[in-house]
Amino acid sequence: MTTDLIIRNVRPLGGAPTDLFIRDGRFVEAAAPKGTDAIDAGGQIALPGLVEAHTHLDKTLIGTDWYRNEVGPTRNDRILADRRAKRELGIDARRQSARQIMQTLPFGVTHIRTHVDVDTEIGIANVQGLVATRAAFAGLVDVQIVAFPQSGMLVRPGTLALMEEALKAGADIVGGIDPASIDRDPVRHLDAIFALADRHSKPIDIHLHEPGELGAFCLELIIERTRALGLQGRVMASHAYCLGTLDAKRQGTLIDALATENIAVMTVGSPSAPALPLKLLRQSGVIVASGSDGIQGTWEPWGSGDMLERAKFLAQRNGMTADADLEAAVEVCTFGGASGIELHDYGLAPGCHGDLVLVAAQTLAEAVALTPHERTVIRGGRILVRNGQLSEDLPHVD
Amino acid sequence: MTTDLIIRNVRPLGGAPTDLFIRDGRFVEAAAPKGTDAIDAGGQIALPGLVEAHTHLDKTLIGTDWYRNEVGPTRNDRILADRRAKRELGIDARRQSARQIMQTLPFGVTHIRTHVDVDTEIGIANVQGLVATRAAFAGLVDVQIVAFPQSGMLVRPGTLALMEEALKAGADIVGGIDPASIDRDPVRHLDAIFALADRHSKPIDIHLHEPGELGAFCLELIIERTRALGLQGRVMASHAYCLGTLDAKRQGTLIDALATENIAVMTVGSPSAPALPLKLLRQSGVIVASGSDGIQGTWEPWGSGDMLERAKFLAQRNGMTADADLEAAVEVCTFGGASGIELHDYGLAPGCHGDLVLVAAQTLAEAVALTPHERTVIRGGRILVRNGQLSEDLPHVD
Ligand SMILES: [Zn+2]
Ligand SMILES: [Zn+2]
Repeated sequence: MTTDLIIRNVRPLGGAPTDLFIRDGRFVEAAAPKGTDAIDAGGQIALPGLVEAHTHLDKTLIGTDWYRNEVGPTRNDRILADRRAKRELGIDARRQSARQIMQTLPFGVTHIRTHVDVDTEIGIANVQGLVATRAAFAGLVDVQIVAFPQSGMLVRPGTLALMEEALKAGADIVGGIDPASIDRDPVRHLDAIFALADRHSKPIDIHLHEPGELGAFCLELIIERTRALGLQGRVMASHAYCLGTLDAKRQGTLIDALATENIAVMTVGSPSAPALPLKLLRQSGVIVASGSDGIQGTWEPWGSGDMLERAKFLAQRNGMTADADLEAAVEVCTFGGASGIELHDYGLAPGCHGDLVLVAAQTLAEAVALTPHERTVIRGGRILVRNGQLSEDLPHVD
Repeated sequence: MTTDLIIRNVRPLGGAPTDLFIRDGRFVEAAAPKGTDAIDAGGQIALPGLVEAHTHLDKTLIGTDWYRNEVGPTRNDRILADRRAKRELGIDARRQSARQIMQTLPFGVTHIRTHVDVDTEIGIANVQGLVATRAAFAGLVDVQIVAFPQSGMLVRPGTLALMEEALKAGADIVGGIDPASIDRDPVRHLDAIFALADRHSKPIDIHLHEPGELGAFCLELIIERTRALGLQGRVMASHAYCLGTLDAKRQGTLIDALATENIAVMTVGSPSAPALPLKLLRQSGVIVASGSDGIQGTWEPWGSGDMLERAKFLAQRNGMTADADLEAAVEVCTFGGASGIELHDYGLAPGCHGDLVLVAAQTLAEAVALTPHERTVIRGGRILVRNGQLSEDLPHVD
């Protein structure tokens, strides 16, 4: 369903006030015919729909009883607790993913890439749940599904076959995780996921938490395989903490190689993990995207999923307070994310999809600093959220 | 003004539901007489009034036009920009401090220690503004005023005399700042502020951003002077980043000395500054308080001033996600702050002042993770905020 709509008195990306016209689902330069539906933005700032480039929709506990976290400190403690919780709490991936989408839609999050667990206990049930949710929100919120071997792939025989099954069932992207420290064999892990991606013509998005030289080595292996298979523009390194823990020379060499092979980097700006060199990455031509990672789940009890708030967190983690830096942080959560997850015709320019979010702020920097709520969200000319109020014709979520 | 009040069906610190009775401004164990005013907390959690142990009420820009930040990266760039902004924007310390207090009261912030600039340009005007605000909120929100030499003390001759004038005008605490890196003479800076505090029988609260061994040396000088003057329990080291940048042995020695001299530490958990070892400090017996530092000013464009959200930031900076750790973070923002800024009869026990905030959450950890708004705030039995709505008889703020 598309709707023609004029948005009057709106400031695209915080610029001068103007009118925008959406026709047949896209922004057009033509003048709107008399009688076209219109809304007055009252001078609010327009951003393109916010891009959530990394979350875990299947695992949020939004709307359930409080989960008491008594989990140990290591990543493996948390993977075990996570798998146990899935089993014991009976988390329904379809329902939970819909809940998170409905929580983040009023913020203006219209595009989501989610990693979805695939393992030998649950099989591809979570992917199937996400396929159902994706269908329920078609045309409203776009969902990309990564088949994600959270519990390891080679160390849990059968997982790789399940990942292939997940792709056939509708997953869009091949996931991966810490090829050395979790899967214990970096070369074979990466060979396997790159072969899978190549065979199915799918992108790759790999969780890479490994620090220092171990992470750098794995990143080199990723770079080599991207080049060898011609997968430039189709690979994302999520977290890539190693980039925040190397000396400047080693860091620079790796960053240049990422730029050359057009490998995107996703960072959430976590306060307790190494900070990635945001400015250097962008200045070097690396696409930087961001995401919320898991929200309100067994891993982390908090998180709103608001990608404008995420821009604030990125700035805070990097000690960036100047307006220009806050504007750059917004770009990461919009255009950077869009490039990173391969969206096309994204933005507010003529020809782009008619998706936008209106935010009441004097400047883009103020929007980041104060993250005002009560936003208006428009998708293809259709008003999904008006001043924070969800439209009544959205899918019912239990 | 005090009011007798029963709070029914309330869960103190997340415990079992009970009733609380406030008589003559304090919690009492006695049964309330029939006809006493009562409110039903509906099973909400009660916390004692939240403690803001470190902010800068005189410098917030809340309610003014957006300040475009084009400031350079060093602390000195920011001090200069800050002083220029005070001059050019004509920031009114009385009005701005009242605005911040009114913004944070609905969160349940009932006790505030604020550092207030004293320098040779503005003299003690900001302290006088804060004295007026403190009087306007007497009995509602308690305000402690630190005479703070933001622009340096020895390097700006005349500042020390102004600080003494500030104490005579109503400031409660002697401030200080980076004795080596800003004031260029650690021994004379510290000798001067300790002498001033000793002469006026006032506590000391010193901003100490200096990293590594330089900060450690200054901390040693502070410890020595605290011991020599018998100021145990009356000195706070704010930020004390050095504690997050030393090796474990050196760190442990300093922390033990802080515990011995009963010197409190204030940390905001900034995502871009060194993380203090929160657990180790507390386990070692050091009082840890927290604060928002400046909010919505020339230094940092963001900040809500919500000390429950601050507990979340502390946990996030320290990578703490277990419920027990989130409960500890709440303690820092309540009891830790109260000890750190020398509040008496603080808490929910019989005999304590009848101050509390009601939060709708299943557990204390959920309260931290989701920081629900629409709280109810009670001061000495008087309801100041009910479900997020300010009472109409509060001071008028322009
Ligand atoms: Zn993730
Ligand atoms: Zn401060």
